[in-house]
Amino acid sequence: MTRRLAYLGPPGTYSEEAALLYDADAELVSATSLPAVIDIVHDGDAEEGIVPVENSLEGAVTFTADLLIHETTLKIKSELVLPIHHCLLATAGATADDVEVVYSHPQSLGQCREYIRQRFPNATPMQSLSNSAAVIDMMQSAKPAVAIAGRRAASFFDVQILEEWVEDNHSNATRFIVLSVEDSAPTGRDKTSICFNFDADKPGSLVSVLAEFSERGINLNKIESRPTRVSLGRYFFLADVDGHQQDGDVRSALEAIGEKVSMLKVLGSYPRHVPD
Amino acid sequence: MTRRLAYLGPPGTYSEEAALLYDADAELVSATSLPAVIDIVHDGDAEEGIVPVENSLEGAVTFTADLLIHETTLKIKSELVLPIHHCLLATAGATADDVEVVYSHPQSLGQCREYIRQRFPNATPMQSLSNSAAVIDMMQSAKPAVAIAGRRAASFFDVQILEEWVEDNHSNATRFIVLSVEDSAPTGRDKTSICFNFDADKPGSLVSVLAEFSERGINLNKIESRPTRVSLGRYFFLADVDGHQQDGDVRSALEAIGEKVSMLKVLGSYPRHVPD
Repeated sequence: MTRRLAYLGPPGTYSEEAALLYDADAELVSATSLPAVIDIVHDGDAEEGIVPVENSLEGAVTFTADLLIHETTLKIKSELVLPIHHCLLATAGATADDVEVVYSHPQSLGQCREYIRQRFPNATPMQSLSNSAAVIDMMQSAKPAVAIAGRRAASFFDVQILEEWVEDNHSNATRFIVLSVEDSAPTGRDKTSICFNFDADKPGSLVSVLAEFSERGINLNKIESRPTRVSLGRYFFLADVDGHQQDGDVRSALEAIGEKVSMLKVLGSYPRHVPD
Repeated sequence: MTRRLAYLGPPGTYSEEAALLYDADAELVSATSLPAVIDIVHDGDAEEGIVPVENSLEGAVTFTADLLIHETTLKIKSELVLPIHHCLLATAGATADDVEVVYSHPQSLGQCREYIRQRFPNATPMQSLSNSAAVIDMMQSAKPAVAIAGRRAASFFDVQILEEWVEDNHSNATRFIVLSVEDSAPTGRDKTSICFNFDADKPGSLVSVLAEFSERGINLNKIESRPTRVSLGRYFFLADVDGHQQDGDVRSALEAIGEKVSMLKVLGSYPRHVPD
């Protein structure tokens, strides 16, 4: 049976590229926002949903972190990493001469700042609501314009790629996670994501939780704090550790942590992405 | 002598409100971006600069965090907290009837989502580049429009406040820091901000650093990770702890940490904000 996979559309975005990288045969269901990706899976209109969690240059996608903490019972069942290489796009027949406007998503404009400054010193960078919208803005522009977006946007809109890898820093990659009703069975090379918080702020609370992992030789991959939305200075913590929650040492660490925190939510155990 | 204080303009933004809260008599120097705030202080065109670091609903201002890690030798000399209460604004004589468009900064639109949905079920939320720009967009709108921005924007542009406190969650506040060439002398109720990272990723590195604080009874207020921009999974850590770097226990903790990390940068010691 074909897997139905919800993603943050429209077609032509990096999220669509990630969805196709995860499963080229999936039936893709385009959502208009990150919460809508989750709603589609909750409602059973897709079995799985794919969302970005972290970019190598920008850091955590905080919107996704907050959804995981506050708004979903879905579990993380997989992760994958999409290299992000921006392309310079133009309409068919157009050249990069006399360009007056460069359209892209604000984050992509930031990632290509030096390139744009040197290549188009006289052009105005203009923000679009997505990389895909940037191509539409370019096609509708009254002034000579180019757009910066992914390869997938070029094929989807049938525009030409003038240059590739135009980002200033080529080690640009985004990690995505796949959400579903259940997480994954152990594979022997897994990781586990959790979130937790504390009632009171006292010296050593966080250290004492993290020590439950380090004392068992469990590697902490990532820790991140998010506001509780109650007051400044109170946080939820999100952590990724090596191992599956069914592994003996991870399970005993989680049991010990459960005694120390006011809330502990296991977001899922799933196969770890291994870089090529 | 009047203090010259750089802030992220234009006038009418919450950053200007914070600058006036910090020093109502300062000569304000409007900057066009966060890096420009820092450049103005580096160049001596202002003695101090004020930048947002954290919002109680949205979390860290990651752009500021990255500037502190990568791009400045300025020190943090003060912090302050600005309560954020959005207002519904309209041009003089206009009412909130038949409104077709609601302009605001994307973050403010997010913070007033429920309010907008209930108050203006038929209006379209439109993104502006700042709260201040939203007022200009409203004034230039061909369709009946309102804007959401702060009190200061209303007085600056001389438009009317139709409603106050229109944000969905009233515990909305932003913490700002003041940057200068030197940080502050000890006051007895201080905090210290640091950033650090590790060459290699091994179990317990982070715990072992944080334990230097907890073993000395030093409270950790905040920890946050930011990408190194080299590859996914490598981070800089930013931490705030109670106490001044000239205090004996903080100094000895920092010395011990210096032996464990590949980079340690003390961003400054400064008087701690005390909630009313």
